Amino acid sequence: MAKRSRPFLSDLIRALTGERRTRDRDPDSPEALEQALARPPLERLLAACDVLMGHLGEAALVAVAEEAVEAYAELDTADRVTFFRHLRDHFGADAAPIRAAYAAWAEAPDAANLAALFRTVEPRRQQLLRRLNMAAGATLALVHMRADLLRAAKQEPDLAPLDADFVHLLTSWFNRGFLQMRRIDWHSPAAILEKILAYESVHPMAGWDELRRRLDPVDRRCYAFFHPTTGNEPLIFVEVALTRGTPGAIAPLLEENQPLDPEDADTAVFYSINNSLSGLRGISFGNFLLKQVVAALSQDLPGLQHYVTLSPAPGFAKWLAAEAEQDADAARLAEQVGERRWVHDFELQQQLRPAVLSAAARYFLRAKNPTGAPLDPVARFHLGNGASADRINWPADLAGNALDRGHGVMINYRYELGLIETRHEDFVRDNTVTHSDELEKLLDLARRA
Amino acid sequence: MAKRSRPFLSDLIRALTGERRTRDRDPDSPEALEQALARPPLERLLAACDVLMGHLGEAALVAVAEEAVEAYAELDTADRVTFFRHLRDHFGADAAPIRAAYAAWAEAPDAANLAALFRTVEPRRQQLLRRLNMAAGATLALVHMRADLLRAAKQEPDLAPLDADFVHLLTSWFNRGFLQMRRIDWHSPAAILEKILAYESVHPMAGWDELRRRLDPVDRRCYAFFHPTTGNEPLIFVEVALTRGTPGAIAPLLEENQPLDPEDADTAVFYSINNSLSGLRGISFGNFLLKQVVAALSQDLPGLQHYVTLSPAPGFAKWLAAEAEQDADAARLAEQVGERRWVHDFELQQQLRPAVLSAAARYFLRAKNPTGAPLDPVARFHLGNGASADRINWPADLAGNALDRGHGVMINYRYELGLIETRHEDFVRDNTVTHSDELEKLLDLARRA
Amino acid sequence: MAKRSRPFLSDLIRALTGERRTRDRDPDSPEALEQALARPPLERLLAACDVLMGHLGEAALVAVAEEAVEAYAELDTADRVTFFRHLRDHFGADAAPIRAAYAAWAEAPDAANLAALFRTVEPRRQQLLRRLNMAAGATLALVHMRADLLRAAKQEPDLAPLDADFVHLLTSWFNRGFLQMRRIDWHSPAAILEKILAYESVHPMAGWDELRRRLDPVDRRCYAFFHPTTGNEPLIFVEVALTRGTPGAIAPLLEENQPLDPEDADTAVFYSINNSLSGLRGISFGNFLLKQVVAALSQDLPGLQHYVTLSPAPGFAKWLAAEAEQDADAARLAEQVGERRWVHDFELQQQLRPAVLSAAARYFLRAKNPTGAPLDPVARFHLGNGASADRINWPADLAGNALDRGHGVMINYRYELGLIETRHEDFVRDNTVTHSDELEKLLDLARRA
Amino acid sequence: MAKRSRPFLSDLIRALTGERRTRDRDPDSPEALEQALARPPLERLLAACDVLMGHLGEAALVAVAEEAVEAYAELDTADRVTFFRHLRDHFGADAAPIRAAYAAWAEAPDAANLAALFRTVEPRRQQLLRRLNMAAGATLALVHMRADLLRAAKQEPDLAPLDADFVHLLTSWFNRGFLQMRRIDWHSPAAILEKILAYESVHPMAGWDELRRRLDPVDRRCYAFFHPTTGNEPLIFVEVALTRGTPGAIAPLLEENQPLDPEDADTAVFYSINNSLSGLRGISFGNFLLKQVVAALSQDLPGLQHYVTLSPAPGFAKWLAAEAEQDADAARLAEQVGERRWVHDFELQQQLRPAVLSAAARYFLRAKNPTGAPLDPVARFHLGNGASADRINWPADLAGNALDRGHGVMINYRYELGLIETRHEDFVRDNTVTHSDELEKLLDLARRA
Repeated sequence: MAKRSRPFLSDLIRALTGERRTRDRDPDSPEALEQALARPPLERLLAACDVLMGHLGEAALVAVAEEAVEAYAELDTADRVTFFRHLRDHFGADAAPIRAAYAAWAEAPDAANLAALFRTVEPRRQQLLRRLNMAAGATLALVHMRADLLRAAKQEPDLAPLDADFVHLLTSWFNRGFLQMRRIDWHSPAAILEKILAYESVHPMAGWDELRRRLDPVDRRCYAFFHPTTGNEPLIFVEVALTRGTPGAIAPLLEENQPLDPEDADTAVFYSINNSLSGLRGISFGNFLLKQVVAALSQDLPGLQHYVTLSPAPGFAKWLAAEAEQDADAARLAEQVGERRWVHDFELQQQLRPAVLSAAARYFLRAKNPTGAPLDPVARFHLGNGASADRINWPADLAGNALDRGHGVMINYRYELGLIETRHEDFVRDNTVTHSDELEKLLDLARRA
Repeated sequence: MAKRSRPFLSDLIRALTGERRTRDRDPDSPEALEQALARPPLERLLAACDVLMGHLGEAALVAVAEEAVEAYAELDTADRVTFFRHLRDHFGADAAPIRAAYAAWAEAPDAANLAALFRTVEPRRQQLLRRLNMAAGATLALVHMRADLLRAAKQEPDLAPLDADFVHLLTSWFNRGFLQMRRIDWHSPAAILEKILAYESVHPMAGWDELRRRLDPVDRRCYAFFHPTTGNEPLIFVEVALTRGTPGAIAPLLEENQPLDPEDADTAVFYSINNSLSGLRGISFGNFLLKQVVAALSQDLPGLQHYVTLSPAPGFAKWLAAEAEQDADAARLAEQVGERRWVHDFELQQQLRPAVLSAAARYFLRAKNPTGAPLDPVARFHLGNGASADRINWPADLAGNALDRGHGVMINYRYELGLIETRHEDFVRDNTVTHSDELEKLLDLARRA
Repeated sequence: MAKRSRPFLSDLIRALTGERRTRDRDPDSPEALEQALARPPLERLLAACDVLMGHLGEAALVAVAEEAVEAYAELDTADRVTFFRHLRDHFGADAAPIRAAYAAWAEAPDAANLAALFRTVEPRRQQLLRRLNMAAGATLALVHMRADLLRAAKQEPDLAPLDADFVHLLTSWFNRGFLQMRRIDWHSPAAILEKILAYESVHPMAGWDELRRRLDPVDRRCYAFFHPTTGNEPLIFVEVALTRGTPGAIAPLLEENQPLDPEDADTAVFYSINNSLSGLRGISFGNFLLKQVVAALSQDLPGLQHYVTLSPAPGFAKWLAAEAEQDADAARLAEQVGERRWVHDFELQQQLRPAVLSAAARYFLRAKNPTGAPLDPVARFHLGNGASADRINWPADLAGNALDRGHGVMINYRYELGLIETRHEDFVRDNTVTHSDELEKLLDLARRA
Repeated sequence: MAKRSRPFLSDLIRALTGERRTRDRDPDSPEALEQALARPPLERLLAACDVLMGHLGEAALVAVAEEAVEAYAELDTADRVTFFRHLRDHFGADAAPIRAAYAAWAEAPDAANLAALFRTVEPRRQQLLRRLNMAAGATLALVHMRADLLRAAKQEPDLAPLDADFVHLLTSWFNRGFLQMRRIDWHSPAAILEKILAYESVHPMAGWDELRRRLDPVDRRCYAFFHPTTGNEPLIFVEVALTRGTPGAIAPLLEENQPLDPEDADTAVFYSINNSLSGLRGISFGNFLLKQVVAALSQDLPGLQHYVTLSPAPGFAKWLAAEAEQDADAARLAEQVGERRWVHDFELQQQLRPAVLSAAARYFLRAKNPTGAPLDPVARFHLGNGASADRINWPADLAGNALDRGHGVMINYRYELGLIETRHEDFVRDNTVTHSDELEKLLDLARRA
């Protein structure tokens, strides 16, 4: 790492060395700085945080914030937890002003008193995080810090309330208006492409040759959201294949193929959607991305008529196992598909298919979580975005993971321009899952069985 | 304005038309849309705001936010005030949840209860503004909305509390980490340059030829901060001249000159700093800009040794007039400089100079506002940034405005790398105004007089 | 102009100082360099040319070429002529090798002998120009040098043969494959826009406001060809207005207007085409530009159905004057339109229009130059590109120049995709001028009169 | 490959179909086009060439040139040879005009007659190649065409004269003034990086991980020349390592290392220089590149004091084998180093080193080719560029190829700013090989032995 010339940060140095400035000893001297920077990172970080919340001039804030971000990066896991506890215990809000402001508001609950109350109630760590964010590259560092916090809060639930402050700020900073969609292809910088390679977890890639196969052919597209301050970090990305007709299996999309002339394509298939940063969990923008991709593609390729996904069934195996405990047919099916003899036995596939498809239809359309929404998380995402459930495919994905979790089942969700809002509303209002006639027939079959 | 194809926004349409969706009538029809969009803009705006705060899918939010931003732009001043009142009265926070959350926190003032209280206390308009910000171009629109609000609040002080919400969000969005410094020169897009031309108010320009004179010569620089979502809008910019020695008058910098080879320059003069958007008042980043410009210039031109301003004395005339009421000498001086005969009389200039300089020294170094800080606003800015007061010049600016407000006085503030933080701290702690020996002598002169 | 650090160019220095390198005296010393560079520019240029044609290493060539280009720029007109004479007399081809190569070829006229002959016959100045072209910015400097040569050759026809060498090289360097079309609009660098302002000679602009009116509105387009090595220099540019219907007068296009939504436009009007550099005369790429603009526009705006020009009639007044000497009707018409009373007399316009239009029809369609091509140079350009003559308009341009040269007449040429090649061929083969029925009727009228 | 909409090319169609245009049959019809394009590629290519040399309008030329370039790409090797023969036999120059022009020139050998002679002597294929070059992407296609020609001419020497025409044009098009140096790093497009991976032949790379190791660390640089019309094709590139001190072996540079802070580096090592396109053989720009890299690095990193190469000794083994036939010492040395036992025997290395170094010194400094220049081709390149021979290293490269050709020897050449031109001249004038005292001592050793 290149040496960084650090401006003299007398406040920080004094905070660390506890010295007052005197005429004879210069806290701004290189020696004082060197001495200060030799302290352990946790000590440097806490000192920097104190300075950031002090009366330091705004221009100097940037340098102290950089110091803090750098010190945080050097902390080990235990020190990070210590830091989070410190944030919780020392960067909250003072009780007295809250009481006073509340009293004033309770007496006269007008906008001015509400604003005053709001000011006192905001935990001081929000201001701290905003100031840390002044450092170059800090936004991404704060996203990683939240990922650390989420991990730490699993062990120590008392840290969980801190997350509200991170969410509050990250939601504001990663506002959809700040996100920039960019197409990613074989002309993109390698520094971005290696992240796509690393973050792709739906259908992982073996290396650069496979990456090229997904980005370079004329019938492939990849789009990602970027944020102005996190540079080359693709926050979320979707991989798209242009096809004729709706594909019913993933393998043909991932293999090397003679590419299709995009102008001959009638369908855009979203076959992999990945969120990159665990520190942005719950700050979703996948729906914005898909909508913008549909807009970009339909402008670019007027011949496209269908926008579908090819999506996994991540909870199907587990659900079928649960069904199996109460239902003999389900138990038999679970056993047969679990054996995997069908993988290489085409006849057995033919034989099992009706039962698998009809069970999957029940899984996607009838199985609900406690809130009444579909049990399948991917279904919740796409249906909640305004898609409809279109076609179930089996066998559609023979990768080990896909067999383990979904018995090889995949489903196409369909985005229909002009119907997206209505479907979204229906879904939100009463969990209505719009679906094709084909799926309705599979349900009928299931009912009859 | 180009026609925009609007996606069907059934929620918005229903909000406007008050209709429920029925099987026989299609709220998504083009006719329904057209009918809805024919409503007056205030009605459309309020409906859009309601929809934005409802359970609408996030993807549809963007379209509704665009609708709202567009409708706001069509409002006249009276309707804008109505809208602000509406924001104040209907987008505050509900009292009951605040009371409950406060009670819980009062009993157990831990981080979790604080977070819960914070959530209830946040005025709902903050969420509204965040959602409006999803529209393309909305950030700038919201900055302009705040400018409208500030104007309206002058007439109607009850609107002032709303500003806290704008400030809260704009401070977060215009965080220094999101600002990008760019150099502006004659190769910059005309669409940016025309804004420089329009926003330059310290030393206004007559037209493109003068603009070129300030940007194109090799001994000129101009830097501005831009924000990723406000595109070509320079938020703040500084004009720089590269010189040998510290200039004592503005005219030679603005006239056509044989440019100096930048490698021969030893001084960078910041002779004009302009904030562009009144809607960002109080969300300052001038100090960041100057600091980053100094860094860029010293990297680019290692020969530079001095960083000074050439700044006006905007309150000098007013201050001298006030002095004149109590002091005969000041009264005589005020009369003589006010007459302006000296403008064309070199001998008279020579004769008046000592008195003008020493009065100006008192103005800059001794005159204070009620908080004990320098009376001169530009002095507060530069001294607060860590500069020192270096040299007073007279006559230095003979433009009408400069004569009216400052009797033609200008001052150089000096930025010394490595001393900026210390000076800033001294200034913040006890209003210490670091200044040169030369100015000290002028003060002595004043004292003796 | 910034100082340039010059590498030590010992060859050049020695060529200038006539010194041989010795052990005791260092030709590479800064003193020797300074001394050499103090010589008059013509001397420096000729020395540099000698060095360039010598055995100097290629890396050093760049520096010497820069020296030469800089020295040339300092020459006055007389010295430039001297330099051209020098090029003619000392950078031709040696006679003996030509004779030998010719003899070999005459005996065995095969490809190898032809190649050998070609090598001997190429004037050495072509190699010199290629080497000069190694300097940064040299391509544009050589274009300007050719412009100087063309001017000089008017006075001194013996210089004319040099032009063949410039044409040979410039044709190769400005090969269409190297040209890049770029759209120019209000976001283009001011450094480019000021050139558009300067080079526009068909309908000159008063200043930046008018420039903005032609570039910024959504119904305007401007495209130019650029060359990779001439940077911001637009070699040729065309200004386009998007309209409904074919315009019959220039003024409405140039005035401030409510812009038309481009998606409502059915017609693209090329109303001004300008070649920028006189040093590229005869190295035409106007036809490539128009063709590429048509392609770009039709892709961008599928609603466009018509591509027409609005072109002047630069030789009409002169032609009519010549006709007037032999024909009484023409004489009367020439007198009436020459008086210009009609400019403000609408009734007189009505009365004169049939005669003007029919005379103009004869001018455009019947008047020929000695080679049998249309007399009108703009007609030759567009018809030669494959356009047809579509409609004559009068009064269409009341600008002084347009009245003087064309009595206010303008004409629309029409480019029809799919017919361009055929029309071009017909025109080339037998000067066929495809024209509309409307023009045919005007000719009939003329015949009958 | 995406379908390309082809404009109607009536000339080309008629050339292919042999039809004359008639009123009843439309050569511009899609059917006629389809029919024409179904012909074999050689036929289409020859027809396109005829059309290109005809009187076709320039705008249509682009389309026909694209047709020709595409047809050429479809030819097999035999057809390419047929095409080259066709170029040789049918696109030469007509004898009669040459004779006439020569006679005129012989009588009056002035510039005008020389220009006229030049015109007649230029083979028509040069015009053809210039016109082919109008197609998008044609420049690179023509470079590849020349590579085909060079291969073909090895079998059929009668084709060799064609190369003169290619060289003539490519020299002009790849003029140094048109080349753009760009830095290549891990942020470069993957489409460029995969070419670096493919073209690196001096020290080949195993894959993307190794590529990243050469491009991403802060102490590595890579620069390439690009041409505006060949897009992402790096014509030549050099890989650079920043080090402290001159490296004596290649392996440490290629392995994974803790990177050095560039500001701590004092040496830039050019350890691999690769020409990418065999079709540009003999059109050299390596010297320009090195010189420009030195300039860029010294600007970027003022701390750099040494610019050296780490270069192979590609002919050393062969030369030593030849020496061995006449000299017993050389024979023994050749045997010992050829055995390669020393590779793993450190003591044997120590023992052999003096003899290897002194033999290598003789090889680099004394062994000459028939023209008196150094026998080693890499030495000729660097010494001819103005470098000096600085240090011989052994064992320095244990890769198989390096052992086979150079017995593991490598050499550092040194570029010294301010001495480059002088050394270049000395080398060109009398093959003087400037070398270090260290090498002189090795020569002494060799002499004494």
